[in-house]
Amino acid sequence: MTTVQLIRGSLKDTRQLLKRCGSAPHFCGVVDVSVTSPKMSVKSEVNGKSYSTCPKCVTLDTMNPAVKVMEYAVRGPLVIRASEIEKELEQGVKKPFKEVLKANIGDCHAMGQVPITFIRQVLALVTLPELLDDPKYPEDVKSRARAILAGCRGGSVGSYTDSPGIEVIRRHVAEYIERRDGVPADWQNVILCAGASDGIKAVLKLLIASINNKPPGVLIPIPQYPLYTASLAEFSMTPIGYFLNEEKNWGLDIPELERSISEAKKYCFPRAIVIINPGNPTGQVLKRENIEAIIKFAHKEKLFIFADEVYQDNVYADGSKFFSFKKVLTEMGEPYSKMELASFLSVSKGYMGECGIRGGYTEVINLDPDVKAMLLKSISAMLCPTTLGQTTMDCVVNPPREGEPSYKHYKQEKDQILNSLKERAKLVADTFNSIEGMSCQPVQGAMYAFPKMELPPKAIAKAASLGQCPSVFYAFQLLENTGICIVPGAGFGQKPGTYHFRTTILPQTEKLKNMLNQFKEFHMKFLAEYK
Amino acid sequence: MTTVQLIRGSLKDTRQLLKRCGSAPHFCGVVDVSVTSPKMSVKSEVNGKSYSTCPKCVTLDTMNPAVKVMEYAVRGPLVIRASEIEKELEQGVKKPFKEVLKANIGDCHAMGQVPITFIRQVLALVTLPELLDDPKYPEDVKSRARAILAGCRGGSVGSYTDSPGIEVIRRHVAEYIERRDGVPADWQNVILCAGASDGIKAVLKLLIASINNKPPGVLIPIPQYPLYTASLAEFSMTPIGYFLNEEKNWGLDIPELERSISEAKKYCFPRAIVIINPGNPTGQVLKRENIEAIIKFAHKEKLFIFADEVYQDNVYADGSKFFSFKKVLTEMGEPYSKMELASFLSVSKGYMGECGIRGGYTEVINLDPDVKAMLLKSISAMLCPTTLGQTTMDCVVNPPREGEPSYKHYKQEKDQILNSLKERAKLVADTFNSIEGMSCQPVQGAMYAFPKMELPPKAIAKAASLGQCPSVFYAFQLLENTGICIVPGAGFGQKPGTYHFRTTILPQTEKLKNMLNQFKEFHMKFLAEYK
Repeated sequence: MTTVQLIRGSLKDTRQLLKRCGSAPHFCGVVDVSVTSPKMSVKSEVNGKSYSTCPKCVTLDTMNPAVKVMEYAVRGPLVIRASEIEKELEQGVKKPFKEVLKANIGDCHAMGQVPITFIRQVLALVTLPELLDDPKYPEDVKSRARAILAGCRGGSVGSYTDSPGIEVIRRHVAEYIERRDGVPADWQNVILCAGASDGIKAVLKLLIASINNKPPGVLIPIPQYPLYTASLAEFSMTPIGYFLNEEKNWGLDIPELERSISEAKKYCFPRAIVIINPGNPTGQVLKRENIEAIIKFAHKEKLFIFADEVYQDNVYADGSKFFSFKKVLTEMGEPYSKMELASFLSVSKGYMGECGIRGGYTEVINLDPDVKAMLLKSISAMLCPTTLGQTTMDCVVNPPREGEPSYKHYKQEKDQILNSLKERAKLVADTFNSIEGMSCQPVQGAMYAFPKMELPPKAIAKAASLGQCPSVFYAFQLLENTGICIVPGAGFGQKPGTYHFRTTILPQTEKLKNMLNQFKEFHMKFLAEYK
Repeated sequence: MTTVQLIRGSLKDTRQLLKRCGSAPHFCGVVDVSVTSPKMSVKSEVNGKSYSTCPKCVTLDTMNPAVKVMEYAVRGPLVIRASEIEKELEQGVKKPFKEVLKANIGDCHAMGQVPITFIRQVLALVTLPELLDDPKYPEDVKSRARAILAGCRGGSVGSYTDSPGIEVIRRHVAEYIERRDGVPADWQNVILCAGASDGIKAVLKLLIASINNKPPGVLIPIPQYPLYTASLAEFSMTPIGYFLNEEKNWGLDIPELERSISEAKKYCFPRAIVIINPGNPTGQVLKRENIEAIIKFAHKEKLFIFADEVYQDNVYADGSKFFSFKKVLTEMGEPYSKMELASFLSVSKGYMGECGIRGGYTEVINLDPDVKAMLLKSISAMLCPTTLGQTTMDCVVNPPREGEPSYKHYKQEKDQILNSLKERAKLVADTFNSIEGMSCQPVQGAMYAFPKMELPPKAIAKAASLGQCPSVFYAFQLLENTGICIVPGAGFGQKPGTYHFRTTILPQTEKLKNMLNQFKEFHMKFLAEYK
């Protein structure tokens, strides 16, 4: 069994780990690689030659070690192989399937979801303003487009905007948050960004500072969305994994938070906690009491809260309801209502799924004003987020209202998408629960299922002989045999000795049914082969 | 005279410097702040309290010190004041001028430049594909839009693309480079990005690694575009300033490169050189022999070349011609043709000026294949650059050809913009040369003039009494008295004891003439006041 599980280690350990795993290591279990010091001293010997005689300025030995240890499973080696297979199919190579189904990434339109007409019309009108005179377009589309263009210098989306975005759109975001939460929101706390990832990294970056000579640590859920481990690795920050409780539908147990932080304090200084709600890859929707307990924990431990709430519109299960961390924290009153928090939304998820457009916002509250000024300064060197991403965010937070001409069609499209996702969420969980050796928690929200598999010892041994985590081995076998591309549990982290995978619920219903049938068939064969 | 000039110093010096300058220091002369070690240990005492009793998780004392030292003059305190003045004017506050003229940033559309119709039509068609059926749009617009949509998963620009961009657009970029240079380009070396800044930071990041226990250093021109000092500060890399030769029209002198690198070697390990051609803020266009000499120098010193060539379409002066570093290096043959190089283009400049859309590309050549794999991995966590930025880049590298229906109109629009910029480049330089105490090198290319001013000793003393660089003092006076917003030379770096400013040449001709008249008038008054 050569599968590697590194709970904590130095940069040297990590590099040795990379050597042992080859260039694309598959971490299994807790991905918790701590680069103990951001001081990155690299030897000047490259393949036995001194730096000056090495043919290249930059080699693996002389490049940024933080980039080397970074992993991003959602776009990792499995996805690269999936793209190769697609090309092979195009070239006529025979396979036991006709197409590759990318269930690895929350990419709605790629899976056949149709864009929301209202959003696309507003985008077309701001890019080609002569369409404002075309009677074909409804008045509410035109008024949205006009308001945005009025907020653009020179009346063109080709101008730079202020670095935190166009004022009128920031105001609309604040109004949206107020409607959602019933508590006040200040538009000057809203920073538009090129997707949530962009916003998360900008805030995370502020925390890169050791305290008491200990490197900064950030609590992240396990399983987690790999953006967090990737960004923490890039920033040489220490990830502190806390396990979600699979048996309690992936809820957060406070004793587990206590355990993880007290262990982490031995080697880092915990500064922040990330909560993903609704959960990715786990699909849970946190209950209000759970959120309150987390806030109390964060307050006691003096942690900055990162509320990754990009799936706030994706809540399906009866009895589940989305509560924002800001709402709960504010309604809890002091001292909690004074806590520092950043919350994120993206145009890539929800019912709109406009991933390629790259739009999002960050709301920051209770920041030290000097720190907020530094945050605004730090984003200014990247000039501004894309105006068309900002426009799309405007459509999301300021959609057609009842009585406006686009309302009916917009509501129809939105409801149809969300209802279909709700059906698919149930279909996916039910199907995996019906498969021998698999169990799947209900998909209360978001766009993913994260089933657990019991794998036969022979399969585990086979994976070990290949130096792979069994979840990775399984995913490669599935891909080669069925064309279905999922993400192995190792990419998100899982309790040692357990094996999972993440699949999206995004293929359209008929395709999804076919996929689930093929999946089941493959799984039975796999079990038989390794019995 | 309290103006601060820090040639080199430790993080501690930098923090002391920040204290002396207040929160918005105006560096004067060479901006060359070296954070000697990326190890950032911050005291846990915050305003005399220990970290645990401090009311905030993050304060100036416990935040990322690299973000604190970062400066970005193009969007600095002067621009913030300009926006305040705009609001004051709206509120009816009386001023000696009617509007603020933002000549601080290369923001073409904000200054009245009209978008290229072809680009906007393609953008509208990919966002709202039903327009493909509208007979109003020319066939070449439709064929471009169809090809891009065919490259998008699910046929929607709302899907994620591969992290380096849509294959067909990368292929078009490679064909464009081949046509431009007459030397081969491989589409797999092309990485699309959200503006050149995004691409530059992605490649720069690879070089964050100390060699022989010395921090990595990067040669940058002085004056420079502040993205470089800002990014180097964020990455705790050491900027190594080399002075451009103002007397030789801001050309690069090899002896100056030798001087700067040999001094820098005492405290850092030089790893790369940045060349901005055509120059920003200086407007020079490098001659081929100059480029050859720089390449030889970079080869001797084993430097990775960053060729910032975003103004390649903006060449105005008779006898000036753009040569890409890649073309020259390739045609020089071995060993130079094997050197590592990254070249950048943006949709924000040229004749299109689509700043708000955020599109760009990076071409990397001769990278170690392992390093290239790491570069591709590192960008994958940010998912993909905006599809509409990619679309705009496609229009730039694959414009209408002779014989296609959009060609004539496209050519007309493009020529009109470039001819007008050429006129304005001459007008601006000539005007500043006609003003007492000012001299301005010819604006051979790009979008800026960078005139030198002789300031009276009394004005210098007044600036000193305010703790400002005289170029900053002058710029604030100009703004408050005329509404004209420029960027002081201190934001780009200038030889000690010399004072400059950067103005764009972008206001439309009539506005520009007015601006220059007002500028002249102000300057005369200023000279009289401080005589």
